[in-house]
Amino acid sequence: MAKNAGAGGRTIHAEHHHLSWDNARPPAMTVAPGAVVEFDRIDALMGQLTRETEAEALLNLDFERVNPVAGPIHVDGAEPGDALKVTLLAFDPCGWAWTAIIPGFGLLAEDFPAPHLHFWSCDTAFKEPAAFGDMARVPLKPFCGTIGVAPRAPGPHSTIPPYASGGNMDIRDLNIGTERYLPVQVPGALFSIGDPHCAQGDGEVCGTAIESIMGVSVKLELVKDENLKFPRFVTPGPVTRHLDAKGYEVTTGIHPDLMDATKDAVRGMIDRLGRLTGMSADQAYMLCSVCADLRISEVVDQPNWVVSCYLPRLVLD
Amino acid sequence: MAKNAGAGGRTIHAEHHHLSWDNARPPAMTVAPGAVVEFDRIDALMGQLTRETEAEALLNLDFERVNPVAGPIHVDGAEPGDALKVTLLAFDPCGWAWTAIIPGFGLLAEDFPAPHLHFWSCDTAFKEPAAFGDMARVPLKPFCGTIGVAPRAPGPHSTIPPYASGGNMDIRDLNIGTERYLPVQVPGALFSIGDPHCAQGDGEVCGTAIESIMGVSVKLELVKDENLKFPRFVTPGPVTRHLDAKGYEVTTGIHPDLMDATKDAVRGMIDRLGRLTGMSADQAYMLCSVCADLRISEVVDQPNWVVSCYLPRLVLD
Repeated sequence: MAKNAGAGGRTIHAEHHHLSWDNARPPAMTVAPGAVVEFDRIDALMGQLTRETEAEALLNLDFERVNPVAGPIHVDGAEPGDALKVTLLAFDPCGWAWTAIIPGFGLLAEDFPAPHLHFWSCDTAFKEPAAFGDMARVPLKPFCGTIGVAPRAPGPHSTIPPYASGGNMDIRDLNIGTERYLPVQVPGALFSIGDPHCAQGDGEVCGTAIESIMGVSVKLELVKDENLKFPRFVTPGPVTRHLDAKGYEVTTGIHPDLMDATKDAVRGMIDRLGRLTGMSADQAYMLCSVCADLRISEVVDQPNWVVSCYLPRLVLD
Repeated sequence: MAKNAGAGGRTIHAEHHHLSWDNARPPAMTVAPGAVVEFDRIDALMGQLTRETEAEALLNLDFERVNPVAGPIHVDGAEPGDALKVTLLAFDPCGWAWTAIIPGFGLLAEDFPAPHLHFWSCDTAFKEPAAFGDMARVPLKPFCGTIGVAPRAPGPHSTIPPYASGGNMDIRDLNIGTERYLPVQVPGALFSIGDPHCAQGDGEVCGTAIESIMGVSVKLELVKDENLKFPRFVTPGPVTRHLDAKGYEVTTGIHPDLMDATKDAVRGMIDRLGRLTGMSADQAYMLCSVCADLRISEVVDQPNWVVSCYLPRLVLD
């Protein structure tokens, strides 16, 4: 159960974890706008990984049991065209986490065919950075990678990709206090949440963040007639001051295709990290995933676009 | 002439502006590594725009006379495989600037067929934000959009796109103090610079920044055997603290194609700015170009990627 959720919270338990978005799924709970809902600890791998798991076990991962979401919550009065305003209030962390390279998954899947797995110890107050061996220390700022409402289109939709209705957006700034607005597609909105992360860089390039089993409590409010096409959010203050004090190492990719530019920017950073610190390519790839940010520097000087990969120097200190 | 360039600076004048990268172009100057070079004020439109120009004149812009660069500078001892380390030391601004929507150019060219032109007054010390009418105030942080070395491939190459050798990268964090490293492709490096900007958002979405005629002084150093594939850079400190104090309004685009996701994120912000402030779509598009940042939030949850457009709330205060 999430701590500090405030009075009046109601709890969603593991029996209401599900593996597809489906607007025909019966609600786990019905609430009035303004309600606080607590979600019991959510495990993105549904018990397939423990602290004793070895990397080779990732080869047998059952992708049918990955990225469950908890819910859905029916919000009274929500109608298509409204926005569901979601504010994260608190996390209930478990103290350990993992980052993995899973074969066939991730931006550079073709470069990294072998499985790798790193375990982290995480301060449950998120105050101390998490150690990446003796190579780096990564500040923590938790969020949920998956947060969404049921899509308009009928039938089951995998929880792996995000949609216009939200879902597995993996936006690292959706932290406590950020207000996010999801486009309601069906009556009642049918909100679900999952994929708790302790930290992540923009892009989540290796496919996993600092993944942890966490509970979460959220406040659900309703804004009428927003008519959003995609989710939007508002951050109450700066988003990178926990990372930026020492500046950044930055690599670029320049290409007529944004995806190719993105891959080259990340390959450049993996190479740079190897030269700077001696870490292996798979370690550098995982470090980028948990704290390096992908920015589109230029997308107008045709025919070549520039994507930059920003690694905060602080983590290497 | 750029101010404060330090003793020993030598100056490149307008007769050494050129409109293509070409490794056969004779050097305008030859220097030893460690030299400081000053560049007279560079005008990205070569006199085609003055403070009296009206937007309709953009329809007749001669693209053969756009984005000149000044140089090239032959750096003694530079060889393919080395990196040219370039540090901007000072700018010599002219006090006014412009941002334009040029038909046929820009991320959303299909949405904005008409020309628009905005003139800015810019504090020559870059301390005060520049007013965007009474709608916004944009903090300034100057840089050069174009900075590069001659490409390995023979013949003339337009200065509009960037290449692996650098050029029109439009990376808004290449400010004073940032160390950038360019992959030397031919003996002597043949460095040139242009496209002075007072400020820009990541992406430069409408195709123009806060564009201004400015002089610049740079220090050119050599790092042997870097063997870079693309330019990289190191920032000495935070890159967004002049913008982030009030947090961000953020919109997203979610799509199987990164370019489509990018366009939708920007369209969302244009819509959001209209609702928040009443500004027109063309005004919002220009404001995004000069201060909103494009980030790739997620590029692994196949088949849909998330691009986010971050507008600093500070500019609307």
